Amino acid sequence: MNTLKNNVGREIPDEILNEKGYKTFKSVDIGNPDKQRVAPKVSVTTGDNKVVDSLEDVVKNNVKDGMTISFHHHFREGDFVFNKVMDIIINSGIKDLTLAPSSLTNVMNDKVVEAIKAGTITNITSSGMRGSLGEAVSHGLLKNPVIFRSHGNRARSIEEGEIKIDVAFLGVPNADRLGNANGMDGDAAFGSLGYALMDANYANKVVLLTDNLVDYPNTPASIKQTQVDYVVKVDKVGDPDRIGTGATRFTKNPKDLQIAKMVNDVIIHSPYFKQGFSFQTGSGGAALAVARFLRQSMIDNDIKASFALGGITKPIVDLLEEGLVNKVMDVQDFDKGAAGSMKSNKNQQEIDASWYADPDNKGAMVDQLDVAILSALEIDTDFNVNVMTGSNGVIRGAVGGHQDAATSKMTIISAPLTRGRIATVVPKVSTVVTPGDSIDVLVTEVGIAVNPKRKDLVEAFKKVPGLPLVSIDELQKRAEKIVGKPEEIQYTDRTVALVEYRDGTLVDAIKEIKD
Amino acid sequence: MNTLKNNVGREIPDEILNEKGYKTFKSVDIGNPDKQRVAPKVSVTTGDNKVVDSLEDVVKNNVKDGMTISFHHHFREGDFVFNKVMDIIINSGIKDLTLAPSSLTNVMNDKVVEAIKAGTITNITSSGMRGSLGEAVSHGLLKNPVIFRSHGNRARSIEEGEIKIDVAFLGVPNADRLGNANGMDGDAAFGSLGYALMDANYANKVVLLTDNLVDYPNTPASIKQTQVDYVVKVDKVGDPDRIGTGATRFTKNPKDLQIAKMVNDVIIHSPYFKQGFSFQTGSGGAALAVARFLRQSMIDNDIKASFALGGITKPIVDLLEEGLVNKVMDVQDFDKGAAGSMKSNKNQQEIDASWYADPDNKGAMVDQLDVAILSALEIDTDFNVNVMTGSNGVIRGAVGGHQDAATSKMTIISAPLTRGRIATVVPKVSTVVTPGDSIDVLVTEVGIAVNPKRKDLVEAFKKVPGLPLVSIDELQKRAEKIVGKPEEIQYTDRTVALVEYRDGTLVDAIKEIKD
Repeated sequence: MNTLKNNVGREIPDEILNEKGYKTFKSVDIGNPDKQRVAPKVSVTTGDNKVVDSLEDVVKNNVKDGMTISFHHHFREGDFVFNKVMDIIINSGIKDLTLAPSSLTNVMNDKVVEAIKAGTITNITSSGMRGSLGEAVSHGLLKNPVIFRSHGNRARSIEEGEIKIDVAFLGVPNADRLGNANGMDGDAAFGSLGYALMDANYANKVVLLTDNLVDYPNTPASIKQTQVDYVVKVDKVGDPDRIGTGATRFTKNPKDLQIAKMVNDVIIHSPYFKQGFSFQTGSGGAALAVARFLRQSMIDNDIKASFALGGITKPIVDLLEEGLVNKVMDVQDFDKGAAGSMKSNKNQQEIDASWYADPDNKGAMVDQLDVAILSALEIDTDFNVNVMTGSNGVIRGAVGGHQDAATSKMTIISAPLTRGRIATVVPKVSTVVTPGDSIDVLVTEVGIAVNPKRKDLVEAFKKVPGLPLVSIDELQKRAEKIVGKPEEIQYTDRTVALVEYRDGTLVDAIKEIKD
Repeated sequence: MNTLKNNVGREIPDEILNEKGYKTFKSVDIGNPDKQRVAPKVSVTTGDNKVVDSLEDVVKNNVKDGMTISFHHHFREGDFVFNKVMDIIINSGIKDLTLAPSSLTNVMNDKVVEAIKAGTITNITSSGMRGSLGEAVSHGLLKNPVIFRSHGNRARSIEEGEIKIDVAFLGVPNADRLGNANGMDGDAAFGSLGYALMDANYANKVVLLTDNLVDYPNTPASIKQTQVDYVVKVDKVGDPDRIGTGATRFTKNPKDLQIAKMVNDVIIHSPYFKQGFSFQTGSGGAALAVARFLRQSMIDNDIKASFALGGITKPIVDLLEEGLVNKVMDVQDFDKGAAGSMKSNKNQQEIDASWYADPDNKGAMVDQLDVAILSALEIDTDFNVNVMTGSNGVIRGAVGGHQDAATSKMTIISAPLTRGRIATVVPKVSTVVTPGDSIDVLVTEVGIAVNPKRKDLVEAFKKVPGLPLVSIDELQKRAEKIVGKPEEIQYTDRTVALVEYRDGTLVDAIKEIKD
């Protein structure tokens, strides 16, 4: 098999490059290209009611063999929309669909596997996948390679026509009879509609599903009547208790707390911790702990942030309420506290995925980020990060906003040195998702490694007494000492998934697992 | 000269139809066509500052011979942006531009005439024009015919590529360093940015001019950083005292009050005056008086409106505050009261011109209107309305939202029978702007004429004691009796302007005045 090695050392099969017209990943620098955007086809209507009873009829009249359909994942594990729609599509005998959701959550896994087996779905592009679906794809169930794209790259691909959505099925917690809708009111409220706004704006046909029909005209209208073809009334769009992560729990794990404190030390001793700085923390117990440490440092140093970005959590909107953060730029909300705050706090601005992170833009929010804190399944001695495949090579993750937020001025990977018997810091990641060139600092519980390319940060941190600076090679060796050398994963020659960089070049190809 | 007669009886020269590929006006019914939209070309940037000092440099580097440039008219007679930009363009020696503003206000007239004379501007599309510019165009100054489009038709034309804006120059009362802006804060605040949102979304290059640079990120962002290429800091973008119509003055003219009361009588005795009805009143003393009468009728009958639409005035936002109107859907604000309310009242929703009135849409607000009250320079016995040319045939008006709002379920023309020695009700309007098929009722101080096609309304109003119903022929005769038959306007064969219907067909052609 002929391959071409890209700029992060990954072998990309020629057949992939030729068939799909891909270029290999070159640089994290986007440059200043001119990009022609695309636009949807509009089916003109002037009627006064788009509410229909039969989802079956909508599917029958609009979804045809070979089309691309999409969904959003704002309901996360509480989603009642995806399986309902897919059941109808599978039962209709429709074939060869491309599934192009903003991401796939676990509650959708078995249904996607079923649809692949039925021939309903033959192509998938997503931010990620896990569980039974990740297993199945890694073992070759899907004929064509999955294409993994970051949230910003999905926005780019939609805006530039690489993803052409024929029909978008979008669950919303409220809508009026013409399709004006937002994510803020109703039993299944989830806050920002950030990812779904792309589908609403660019799909040829937009189908809203809601359990909450409200008076016309419904405002604020994050999705507008000018974008919507059908409003389908359903019993329930989502399970409120499984939409968010629920109550905010700070980690009590001493290792996580230790890492969080070290991350905070890195931030406050960096040149970026100054009046009007900006940050993205992400979700998860460790991220919440960072927010708590950062809050205290901001108070102690009388420093306020201009904005916090990203997936938003309750501790972040608490900073907004406290006046420690001026604006929250919100592409999705991870918990009820954050979702509820979007309704009441005018300084929490809903942003779509393009504004959040499309690299081919007149400036996305991520371009303005000072500090981003990101996670890793693996990070290698070139600082390349894998958030997609497990230590056994099986797909079990998502690009999410990882590549996008890594464009920040200081990108910190926060991760334990090892997890159980598995090393986090490795000689070579099994899958490159985010190139090491955009990673600046790795914080583990045993030490902090700064990317040697960031001489400025190395110099700055050297002056800070007590910061445990080590080389990433040293961290890799220490991890290996603890858990030993893993057996090499055995793959076949077949490519089961492609990982695009945010600019649409190929950063890696994921192979089928040899059983 | 060969001509083709369209469905409102207007002769359209063959050469116009052939050269421009125009179809003639057929019907006010838009139907259900499929329409492919277009999208701009984006010049990618990831920098953190778009603020430039030199408007000259921006013009020099971006405006080229033959391009289409645009402006908005939200500053109305207080606009400081248009003349400043045009001066630089004229002095740069750039030629053959198409000028495509949302409309042209009087403060711009002389500069446009100067630019035409200099060869800078050779094509114009606008909602309207008046004063010295209207005179000049009517007397043949511009080589190519002006194209007049309604606000909804401009949105449609931009979305479908008939107007391709190369560079939009948009004045805003606030913006941050990357171009996030709204119309609500700052000395020159004007409220809704409704018309300008089209330019921001579809122009290849977007240049903001502002006198008020604010902290990043600026929210709410009606115009977003993802749409903006340059932010130019200027001394003043507008004269606050001339942006709005200033203090709200109710008319004391007995004739106007009489008409306003009759308009209200028509509304409240129509089948549309019921719980949850909707309306658009427009601006001007008579419209304000209607709002006052309507308010009392709503209180007396315990009826609330679901929404008020359009250009918004203080009396309309007062109804919102009072709870008599649930939502105000706001494409522009005519006075400071309305503009100020948009900032503070979350039920006053900013809408763009597409959502307001684009006919080729998945439903615009105007499609949902129950009642619209519109004006007329002339209305003929077929109910065709002219809001474009004066009794001497000279251009002195604007389509505005006239054709758009006339799609309401009951469109009322409110006008005096005569103005001075000039008849309003005439045998044939000199220019057809809005076809009579979409006009339902004419209210004058001497009687109310219902379009005979609306048999339902005729029957409903017959049952109302005291409503002075007359035929429109009778009104025309009474007008003629008062002012006599006017001399026929003398035109040359040359076409100086085209009036499109909102769907892009040709509803009329305006000829050069013979001196």
